[in-house]
Amino acid sequence: MTRQELIEQIRRKESFLCVGLDTDLDKIPPHLLEDEDPIFAFNKAIIDATKHLAVAYKPNLAFYECHGAKGWESLQKTLDYIPSDCFTIADAKRGDIGNTSSYYAQTFFNTLGCDAVTVAPYMGEDSVKPFLAFDGKWVILLALTSNKGALDFQFIQDRSGEELYKHVLKKSCEWGTKENLMFVVGATRAEGIGEVRSLVPDHFFLVPGVGAQGGSLAEVVAFGWNADCGLLVNSSRGILYASNGVDFAEKAGHEAHILQQEMSSLLKEKGFI
Amino acid sequence: MTRQELIEQIRRKESFLCVGLDTDLDKIPPHLLEDEDPIFAFNKAIIDATKHLAVAYKPNLAFYECHGAKGWESLQKTLDYIPSDCFTIADAKRGDIGNTSSYYAQTFFNTLGCDAVTVAPYMGEDSVKPFLAFDGKWVILLALTSNKGALDFQFIQDRSGEELYKHVLKKSCEWGTKENLMFVVGATRAEGIGEVRSLVPDHFFLVPGVGAQGGSLAEVVAFGWNADCGLLVNSSRGILYASNGVDFAEKAGHEAHILQQEMSSLLKEKGFI
Repeated sequence: MTRQELIEQIRRKESFLCVGLDTDLDKIPPHLLEDEDPIFAFNKAIIDATKHLAVAYKPNLAFYECHGAKGWESLQKTLDYIPSDCFTIADAKRGDIGNTSSYYAQTFFNTLGCDAVTVAPYMGEDSVKPFLAFDGKWVILLALTSNKGALDFQFIQDRSGEELYKHVLKKSCEWGTKENLMFVVGATRAEGIGEVRSLVPDHFFLVPGVGAQGGSLAEVVAFGWNADCGLLVNSSRGILYASNGVDFAEKAGHEAHILQQEMSSLLKEKGFI
Repeated sequence: MTRQELIEQIRRKESFLCVGLDTDLDKIPPHLLEDEDPIFAFNKAIIDATKHLAVAYKPNLAFYECHGAKGWESLQKTLDYIPSDCFTIADAKRGDIGNTSSYYAQTFFNTLGCDAVTVAPYMGEDSVKPFLAFDGKWVILLALTSNKGALDFQFIQDRSGEELYKHVLKKSCEWGTKENLMFVVGATRAEGIGEVRSLVPDHFFLVPGVGAQGGSLAEVVAFGWNADCGLLVNSSRGILYASNGVDFAEKAGHEAHILQQEMSSLLKEKGFI
């Protein structure tokens, strides 16, 4: 999906919601466990209940890999089921030497057909660039993450006072463009989003950490907005596990609707729709 | 496998060789492509030809994931086939927020039964620690990698002149011990290995980059040796693709034997055996 197509979807659905498909057998409604493929059965119902409200879906690979080959099949079926007007993100946080990253890129873009994959920056240029060589496909690079451990290395300052995450932003802008590169920017540090926005005015951000992790949607928009919206805000647990009963999909749809309504208001305030 | 057991294997086999199972359908002998599972057929022959010479095997996940569910099955069969006296490393370079890293850890340690998994440090403590919570299992943390992109971020110096990779070494030693934490230290920067060794005298290093990437075994030992050997040196392409014919396993065994003989001499020089 191109940048322009993504922006059109945001306008059309009045939403910049990404639903994180962190599908956990320990948390899904027990009645689904009798299904031949409980993960896919759950995802299918969640997608049906939210596809008019979400512009993106983000399965986290950890929740599929833990079931081995069977989990991989659930992931493929899920990605095939997501409507083509939705942006799909493999939240995989991969990155390896060039030759090997090419294989990861082929997996996520060609085999699984995702629009984007999250990538870790530690190994530098040749670990990221192979993911940028696919037309219409995206790297979403970890910049400022939403977890506590983000403080361990991402804020280390160089001699001029510049933090590591700013090095990551600046350097990676030499490798990709606003048409194929986004950044992960956690919502638990709203001022941080503003810092990132001032450095990369044009790129989209994938923002985790709204909801269960404590970030606020209005703050994310206040600090992260750009002329093209420039935001995909992810919610996983708050939507997926809104109910543990037979009404789980309905309740998930309800939670997604609340977020979409808030997003719609914010998009209107900004004069975007 | 415990640290003591690993050291015993090094003495017994007179080797600190790790064979990297980066099994690529474009590179394996064409006659194997008729097999029902060419990747496992290749790996099985490589393991049979090298298991008396190698103390460790390291499948890189990228080469298995690119075949989806089928690749995952090849990986599981390969890991099940590796003799229990060999240390197994899932070269996966994972790392995510705590809850998610726990799932990755379960996958690699419980489902696949690996002894170790490579982990990327960018997200900090809560992305690494869940991997350290398994008895007899190991994190091998990226510190100083062997690729060109290592120069982009790993050498950024803080205000006191200390490089990022040294922060990673020091900080992570607060999370794990020499009994459950190793470091990836590339052989293409031999002096770098010495710098790392001076900071972490007791830990094992996994050293890629010998052979195809240009590092020298004698230099790795000169700079990286410690009282317990402290080194696992990986070779992938130089062994796997020594021949593209029906004699591929024999030739792989021959290349592994050359490395093992050199390692045996070095171990003797050091008075380790």
